[in-house]
Amino acid sequence: MSTIRVTVWNEYRHEKQNQHVASIYPRGIHHAIGDYLSGIEGLEIGTATLDEPEHGLTEEVLANTDVLIWWGHLAHAEVRDDIVEKVRERVLDGMGLIVLHSGHGSKLFERLLGTRTGRLKWRDDGELERVWVVEPGHPIADGLGDCFEIPKEEMYGERFDIPAPDELIFISWFEGGEVFRSGCTYRRGKGKLFYFRPGHETFPIYHQPEVLKVIGNAVRWAAPNPGAAVISGRMEPIHPTSKA
Amino acid sequence: MSTIRVTVWNEYRHEKQNQHVASIYPRGIHHAIGDYLSGIEGLEIGTATLDEPEHGLTEEVLANTDVLIWWGHLAHAEVRDDIVEKVRERVLDGMGLIVLHSGHGSKLFERLLGTRTGRLKWRDDGELERVWVVEPGHPIADGLGDCFEIPKEEMYGERFDIPAPDELIFISWFEGGEVFRSGCTYRRGKGKLFYFRPGHETFPIYHQPEVLKVIGNAVRWAAPNPGAAVISGRMEPIHPTSKA
Amino acid sequence: MSTIRVTVWNEYRHEKQNQHVASIYPRGIHHAIGDYLSGIEGLEIGTATLDEPEHGLTEEVLANTDVLIWWGHLAHAEVRDDIVEKVRERVLDGMGLIVLHSGHGSKLFERLLGTRTGRLKWRDDGELERVWVVEPGHPIADGLGDCFEIPKEEMYGERFDIPAPDELIFISWFEGGEVFRSGCTYRRGKGKLFYFRPGHETFPIYHQPEVLKVIGNAVRWAAPNPGAAVISGRMEPIHPTSKA
Amino acid sequence: MSTIRVTVWNEYRHEKQNQHVASIYPRGIHHAIGDYLSGIEGLEIGTATLDEPEHGLTEEVLANTDVLIWWGHLAHAEVRDDIVEKVRERVLDGMGLIVLHSGHGSKLFERLLGTRTGRLKWRDDGELERVWVVEPGHPIADGLGDCFEIPKEEMYGERFDIPAPDELIFISWFEGGEVFRSGCTYRRGKGKLFYFRPGHETFPIYHQPEVLKVIGNAVRWAAPNPGAAVISGRMEPIHPTSKA
Repeated sequence: MSTIRVTVWNEYRHEKQNQHVASIYPRGIHHAIGDYLSGIEGLEIGTATLDEPEHGLTEEVLANTDVLIWWGHLAHAEVRDDIVEKVRERVLDGMGLIVLHSGHGSKLFERLLGTRTGRLKWRDDGELERVWVVEPGHPIADGLGDCFEIPKEEMYGERFDIPAPDELIFISWFEGGEVFRSGCTYRRGKGKLFYFRPGHETFPIYHQPEVLKVIGNAVRWAAPNPGAAVISGRMEPIHPTSKA
Repeated sequence: MSTIRVTVWNEYRHEKQNQHVASIYPRGIHHAIGDYLSGIEGLEIGTATLDEPEHGLTEEVLANTDVLIWWGHLAHAEVRDDIVEKVRERVLDGMGLIVLHSGHGSKLFERLLGTRTGRLKWRDDGELERVWVVEPGHPIADGLGDCFEIPKEEMYGERFDIPAPDELIFISWFEGGEVFRSGCTYRRGKGKLFYFRPGHETFPIYHQPEVLKVIGNAVRWAAPNPGAAVISGRMEPIHPTSKA
Repeated sequence: MSTIRVTVWNEYRHEKQNQHVASIYPRGIHHAIGDYLSGIEGLEIGTATLDEPEHGLTEEVLANTDVLIWWGHLAHAEVRDDIVEKVRERVLDGMGLIVLHSGHGSKLFERLLGTRTGRLKWRDDGELERVWVVEPGHPIADGLGDCFEIPKEEMYGERFDIPAPDELIFISWFEGGEVFRSGCTYRRGKGKLFYFRPGHETFPIYHQPEVLKVIGNAVRWAAPNPGAAVISGRMEPIHPTSKA
Repeated sequence: MSTIRVTVWNEYRHEKQNQHVASIYPRGIHHAIGDYLSGIEGLEIGTATLDEPEHGLTEEVLANTDVLIWWGHLAHAEVRDDIVEKVRERVLDGMGLIVLHSGHGSKLFERLLGTRTGRLKWRDDGELERVWVVEPGHPIADGLGDCFEIPKEEMYGERFDIPAPDELIFISWFEGGEVFRSGCTYRRGKGKLFYFRPGHETFPIYHQPEVLKVIGNAVRWAAPNPGAAVISGRMEPIHPTSKA
């Protein structure tokens, strides 16, 4: 199996502005996730952040990324439209994309799905979340129990304005009374997308083993495969030729 | 709009064996549902029960049913295989089917979906259920708020062993910590199926306005439409003829 | 049943620039379709075209449209981005949308679906198309045989770069050797979308009864229904309150 | 990557009754497919046929099969119901299943999907089939062009009475004027199913490189993964405990 090249993209603002968040993620959410993934054989990890030139997503970086992980929140509007478009093209050409938590409101996610993906219910009270597996045969659920708990999380609740996912892997239950489609896959162009809900910056979510396991599983699942040739444009009729 | 002929099928055993259930549904669950539907313009309601000859589902009854509603629980095994098969054929030919609550374990539902639909978690403690709408544009959700509550219900929890529904309309939240895909549509053959979770016999679920509204909506949604012709079997090539 | 207000939008350039197209559609494609729909009880028909102010899609027109039909080809790029955005919002709020033929390459369709919907194979040779029904129970297929033929059409061939449709209703066969997913439904937000392939401007496609029947069926299918309430944003926990 | 244990099941009657078929497949279709798969690293191949005791599908064989390939035609009715049921259970528990060509009419396929999967159009004239890739990013399409041709095949045409597939990978075009959904995936229970159309016994289909490549790709795709735990039955409420 060949190496999967992962780029973990993080807005990286909360960690610099908020001491509490910084205490949880001293080097940023991107490094918390990246460090975990670095321990998995066959993965090669890079990071990129909003405030780097071109948000760290140069043509070269994108060309050398098999799976992109996306965490953003405060500064969705600051992400450049031309870079969103370049990333979208790469996804449609086959790059895997994993969108985490508040990344649901990013330009990139909305651009790829077409609906107002920023719309949902939320409550930032640090309540219990229980994440239930509804598709236990899916590789993204490998190695999990029938559910796992996150002791303190921000609540996200339905109606989440997404297209019905191709596969619904997880549904979350929240102590305060809501539910949420927390693990959703989409195939777009030749690319595979996975949205995974957990990850509020004020809690140590990306230090929790089950959450990290899911992200690792998703990286393997989203990695590109050769696929078939795609040809577009004007065509000569091939039928008569074929029968000759 | 032409009349929709509905047959409400009920196992009708709990009501005869259990005084508490009888006090909630003196004439049976089928009449509670049937009485509500009778008040909707354009519906014509009949009932059928397990202990009638042929379970009340004679060829004539089936031929004159546009939408069949199914409630069963104790006596799934007593339903005759040949009648299950006849009902299945009618569904595949276009009759709508609404399966309620414990009907998930019926031979009919399992036969139409192919998986072990009887498998799920459950707990009969009379806890709060909150039913969330996840597909608010669907006609089965017409007239609802963004969720509704059932004060005391039996819990059903995931993993529910069904094929991924064509459309997921409702997800339930339970006080005890579980979630459930509570409103699921399937298209099978020319027929439309809807599974709707609420309805434990020891609580007055089928007297609750929101639950009845959903059933009424589902009847309209599941009613057959003319559709297109279906032709099977050996065919002559039509291509050369067509070009002539 | 209440009236469905339909607006037929047409780019309306071919008909003004090309005498052959004008001879087929003297008043434009929009009127050919509109005239047919006007004959269906319960529909109220308006039209709009690219070169009208705001492309004929003012706030008032959009607010009074239940189902929008879209035909465009030459001038996709001339459609204003802000109007595309307004139409998209209306679709996500529940307005039905029927995209015809070369409308696959429109900004609106691409914006709502997220993929490069302009990509497909094509050949403008006027060959036989046979449109097969693969979902015969669907209301969009009402009244059709198991297939219908279009004697001379432009070919569109796969790979068509769309998200997998929620429902695939038609697949086309072309004389020259290609196939195409010709009837695709999507639910986006509260709105229902239908893509229907036939309709090259140089052939009298929108005078053919089967094609018109499908468009009429699709209008009924795509019309908005009340649906359920949608609430977004920060929420108080409703659980404790509910149990009180 | 661990070894995938494949069992190729073949009815194996045509080859014994028909000299022409025997000349194409002297050791049977199962060995033609098995020989190809044996050349792929990481696969371990066994075979089983109808006329062996228990159709060659003993508990031991099933327990040691990761992916089962199924070819049947003449003798669907002779397959024992109890063995169909055992195979179905194994699939729902995670075993992959690849159903080939006339296997669409098998008890096993119909039992797992619930519809009348035997219903389709057919014509045994040996005409050109062109198999188009509609989901080029899918691993089952790895290494293909945008289509491939089978010079002489039996035609299968729509309406094919299957539930809408989870993923539609291939659509076939036939010289005589029909189309067919030729590559369909389904997830049922923890198992992955793939239906692949080509394979009439009177033509050397299973000697053709593209057809074999697809089968090999599908074996890898259908192989079980660990997945998540599945727990069913009566549950204590876990919520209060969790918060303690």
